[in-house]
Amino acid sequence: MAQFLAAGCELTVLLADIHGFLDNLKAPLELVMHRAEFYRYTISTLLGAVGVSTEKLKIVLGSSYQKSAEYVMDVYKMASIISEHDAKKAGAEIVKQTDNAPLSGLLYPILQVLDEQYLDVDAQFGGVDQRKLFIAAKEWLPKLGYKERAHLMNPMVPGLHGGKMSSSDPDSKIDLLDSPETVAKKIKKAHAAPQVTEDNGLLAFIEYVLLPASGLRGKKEFKVERERDGLETLVYEDIEKIREDYRNDIVSITSGKWGAEGWGC
Amino acid sequence: MAQFLAAGCELTVLLADIHGFLDNLKAPLELVMHRAEFYRYTISTLLGAVGVSTEKLKIVLGSSYQKSAEYVMDVYKMASIISEHDAKKAGAEIVKQTDNAPLSGLLYPILQVLDEQYLDVDAQFGGVDQRKLFIAAKEWLPKLGYKERAHLMNPMVPGLHGGKMSSSDPDSKIDLLDSPETVAKKIKKAHAAPQVTEDNGLLAFIEYVLLPASGLRGKKEFKVERERDGLETLVYEDIEKIREDYRNDIVSITSGKWGAEGWGC
Repeated sequence: MAQFLAAGCELTVLLADIHGFLDNLKAPLELVMHRAEFYRYTISTLLGAVGVSTEKLKIVLGSSYQKSAEYVMDVYKMASIISEHDAKKAGAEIVKQTDNAPLSGLLYPILQVLDEQYLDVDAQFGGVDQRKLFIAAKEWLPKLGYKERAHLMNPMVPGLHGGKMSSSDPDSKIDLLDSPETVAKKIKKAHAAPQVTEDNGLLAFIEYVLLPASGLRGKKEFKVERERDGLETLVYEDIEKIREDYRNDIVSITSGKWGAEGWGC
Repeated sequence: MAQFLAAGCELTVLLADIHGFLDNLKAPLELVMHRAEFYRYTISTLLGAVGVSTEKLKIVLGSSYQKSAEYVMDVYKMASIISEHDAKKAGAEIVKQTDNAPLSGLLYPILQVLDEQYLDVDAQFGGVDQRKLFIAAKEWLPKLGYKERAHLMNPMVPGLHGGKMSSSDPDSKIDLLDSPETVAKKIKKAHAAPQVTEDNGLLAFIEYVLLPASGLRGKKEFKVERERDGLETLVYEDIEKIREDYRNDIVSITSGKWGAEGWGC
């Protein structure tokens, strides 16, 4: 998102409050509203922290248009030309799919596709796990006479444990509200096999989060302080060099040569 | 419907224009609007023809509330607590169900269930083919905190050909706009095995349509003119006697003893 803004793009962020409410009817609507407010605040703050202007940033609540008569008629229309099979295929990587799964899981792809039209965007951006939904958007929107949008995808950043990042496992991710001590603890606990760069959650985090963020702040670099070992600080400017040194055991996590300093703690 | 009004009930008829539009996106919205107007006119005229007051009759267009924000939130909510499996089960007798069927078929049960709440009725009335949807309504509405409604069911009147009446087979039914000659022709062509009273479309039509209609007009009776054969007119007041005479070949269709006169032609 910061990179889009830095590149001069107009950026619209959808806060899917209706989805949030529906995902778990036990969460009262007011809680979801507060959550949306939290996201609005943290997203703006994060973007400010990496030094990009939020002038071209628009944050839209799903509820501001997903209950309108026009949108709803399009939901009904889309539902009447899209088969159950196609809706299931589109949501396969995103929506839990069992015979007992709620029907809303089949509606989600329809809503997400229509959002492109109602948010009036030229392109949608998401993780590669969204690719089947993006294909659906390209195929379905023209059926209602709407234009086909472009799609941009991020690789999935693995969790600190390796494998998939999980919102229910706090140790698999770094939370916005984590204290420096908590971040340091999580990094120490992270699963990162020595000298193995494949499926390494820490290296991925450096590649996709820390290096780009420092770049936006002015200088793309990642520092490894080694004062404790009487060695000079290593300064990296690209992930390839970090990978190489990691592979050759020049930097490592388990050996204690790699502190939490580079992580902004 | 006429019997409910004659009994002093308040009656609400839902003209499902959105459904009509969605069932076949090729029919433009204006055509569906005209069709709804046609139904509004013919229903009122039919009720007038059998002599019941339409003072307590309300005819409501689905589009007048099915696009409202409140209704839509309830559609989203219901979709998030009802499983695909349960939605499919509820619509099993009404909605075509193949893997390639449109998703709207799974939404229909949700809409029909919510209609009870939004039309503010105490009971829903329909054919016995609606029973799975009625069971769903009883189970689903309380999940959103709405009260459970009563349900009343009609037996299905078989087509003139015997078996199911079909809107795509004009000879299986008598249309509102059929001329007396057309009605007479359809009755002559009807499949009604001599002396067999089971699955007999003509006898069913007399039982469920003509006898009740004459009752509402003042006197429950069905006449068979036999002037052509030099015999006196037979006047029946209940279906059992008609069935008995039909079984004993005193009246029949194929023998020509039974004209179209009793059908109001």
